[in-house]
Amino acid sequence: MNVDYEVIRNKAIDLLEQRGVKLIDIAKITLEIQKQYYDNLTIDECLDHVNNVLNKREVLNAVLTGVTIDVLAEQGHIEEPLKSLLMNDYSLYGIDEVLAYSIVNVYGSIGLTNFGYIDKLKVGIIGEVDKLGKTPNRCNTFLDDIVGAIAAAAASRIAHTR
Amino acid sequence: MNVDYEVIRNKAIDLLEQRGVKLIDIAKITLEIQKQYYDNLTIDECLDHVNNVLNKREVLNAVLTGVTIDVLAEQGHIEEPLKSLLMNDYSLYGIDEVLAYSIVNVYGSIGLTNFGYIDKLKVGIIGEVDKLGKTPNRCNTFLDDIVGAIAAAAASRIAHTR
Amino acid sequence: MNVDYEVIRNKAIDLLEQRGVKLIDIAKITLEIQKQYYDNLTIDECLDHVNNVLNKREVLNAVLTGVTIDVLAEQGHIEEPLKSLLMNDYSLYGIDEVLAYSIVNVYGSIGLTNFGYIDKLKVGIIGEVDKLGKTPNRCNTFLDDIVGAIAAAAASRIAHTR
Amino acid sequence: MNVDYEVIRNKAIDLLEQRGVKLIDIAKITLEIQKQYYDNLTIDECLDHVNNVLNKREVLNAVLTGVTIDVLAEQGHIEEPLKSLLMNDYSLYGIDEVLAYSIVNVYGSIGLTNFGYIDKLKVGIIGEVDKLGKTPNRCNTFLDDIVGAIAAAAASRIAHTR
Repeated sequence: MNVDYEVIRNKAIDLLEQRGVKLIDIAKITLEIQKQYYDNLTIDECLDHVNNVLNKREVLNAVLTGVTIDVLAEQGHIEEPLKSLLMNDYSLYGIDEVLAYSIVNVYGSIGLTNFGYIDKLKVGIIGEVDKLGKTPNRCNTFLDDIVGAIAAAAASRIAHTR
Repeated sequence: MNVDYEVIRNKAIDLLEQRGVKLIDIAKITLEIQKQYYDNLTIDECLDHVNNVLNKREVLNAVLTGVTIDVLAEQGHIEEPLKSLLMNDYSLYGIDEVLAYSIVNVYGSIGLTNFGYIDKLKVGIIGEVDKLGKTPNRCNTFLDDIVGAIAAAAASRIAHTR
Repeated sequence: MNVDYEVIRNKAIDLLEQRGVKLIDIAKITLEIQKQYYDNLTIDECLDHVNNVLNKREVLNAVLTGVTIDVLAEQGHIEEPLKSLLMNDYSLYGIDEVLAYSIVNVYGSIGLTNFGYIDKLKVGIIGEVDKLGKTPNRCNTFLDDIVGAIAAAAASRIAHTR
Repeated sequence: MNVDYEVIRNKAIDLLEQRGVKLIDIAKITLEIQKQYYDNLTIDECLDHVNNVLNKREVLNAVLTGVTIDVLAEQGHIEEPLKSLLMNDYSLYGIDEVLAYSIVNVYGSIGLTNFGYIDKLKVGIIGEVDKLGKTPNRCNTFLDDIVGAIAAAAASRIAHTR
């Protein structure tokens, strides 16, 4: 099978934007959690790392898959009882964290801590994504974890490359 | 949110049957890979372990999610380029293995070996599932990994309880 | 091989105590991060969950292994360059998080968030463990992650059983 | 902390050789399991991929840690009951698979299948490592999984780059 990952990358970034998340929003999360460790860290550098995370195939496949599930849940294409688990972001569902972990782990286990912290405190855009997901007929069950995971992976990449 | 896991369990088992996999088929895989280690291991005992694996919430959520994606891909509800990745069971997609890993790991890391072996050799029903998934308009991208993962988890459970 | 997990359990708890961590200290972390979600959660209930986490074989094996590495590093039995990575709790080492993840994951992926949060904020005894690990000739590289992972796993267990 | 990964890399390769495993032995495993998919795959290309896997920090840290535990168990520096779990390569220990997974996963979840297959069939040098580990006073509990994991990661790298 002939796969063009430039197409997949563009689609993944489009999907994130359609769901209200720009790459700069993700870069802001990375900056927020890393600026205390690096005096001269800039938003441009963080954005560069986010862009690099989004060159990884497993990351792109996780983004496509997770956001697609959110959208299909909203569109009514998913049957019960999975529909309700998704529409309510049920805390014991866990598959959103499973996908997030596959993203974070691209730069090794050191990203786990940052992911957990971002997810718990709903840093930056994640707070908005989460709130929007709680309105009727909206589903951001995967989106918030995916965004947090990309931000955490970018933070790991900074640690590996600086 | 009030969730009845008996409903989820029944739905997961129904979905597997609709896709052509009975629990006894999964138990047969477990027996096949474990009989050399336990002289007196029976198909009934294996089936009992498979049933117990399917009491775990994370397993049920992974089954519902994975099989639902397969079905939605067949029904044409998933957009390109994800659609093609799924319909062709693209070898670098990887999210099917991510979900499978979340199932296998329910009984710890010792299940990894059995999962890999089952998946590589397409033991039992997995060979049929895989072949069927290669026919036009059919998608078993998640199903084969999910079935292998349940069988491997059941094997781990045998090792833990005997 | 005949293995008595009661012996292993007792040894793991002894090792934690020798390194300055009582089970009640771990229960306090669990209470701290979960009390906002459950009005009537008590320290006794948290301790009960911590005790149950320590009935899991993979958890006990991870505790024994991680703490043993810390001790052997202090005793000078580990050669360079691994010795320095351990004695300095090198941020890109990562194997401490790998072991922690194997503990957290015993109750599924939902524990990742709590682990990350605990680890980042160094909740409760973890702050002390971490500070002590930074004194000369002391190594708590694995201990702090292991303690945080047990506390996070106990929090997941509460979510699953309440 | 100033860490020279060239030093760590050399030490990891030295340790593997001291334990009886040359990189060419690992490359042979990769070739064995991948030659059916790529007509023109050579041992030199496989060796190149093995060398690249051993440029990854998390891989090197896992190799150093795992092999060091094996050696310390043989030298009598590890106390009971962990000593016996290690010296007997106890099947429910699981921490060896945990470390192996952290290696395999460096190139994503697609490596799981190959790892499981290699580990189950004890392909190539792994059979020898495993047999040697069963002789008195020898411990290869981590070594066999680590070698299998590097070979599986190299196979994933081939799939990603070809």
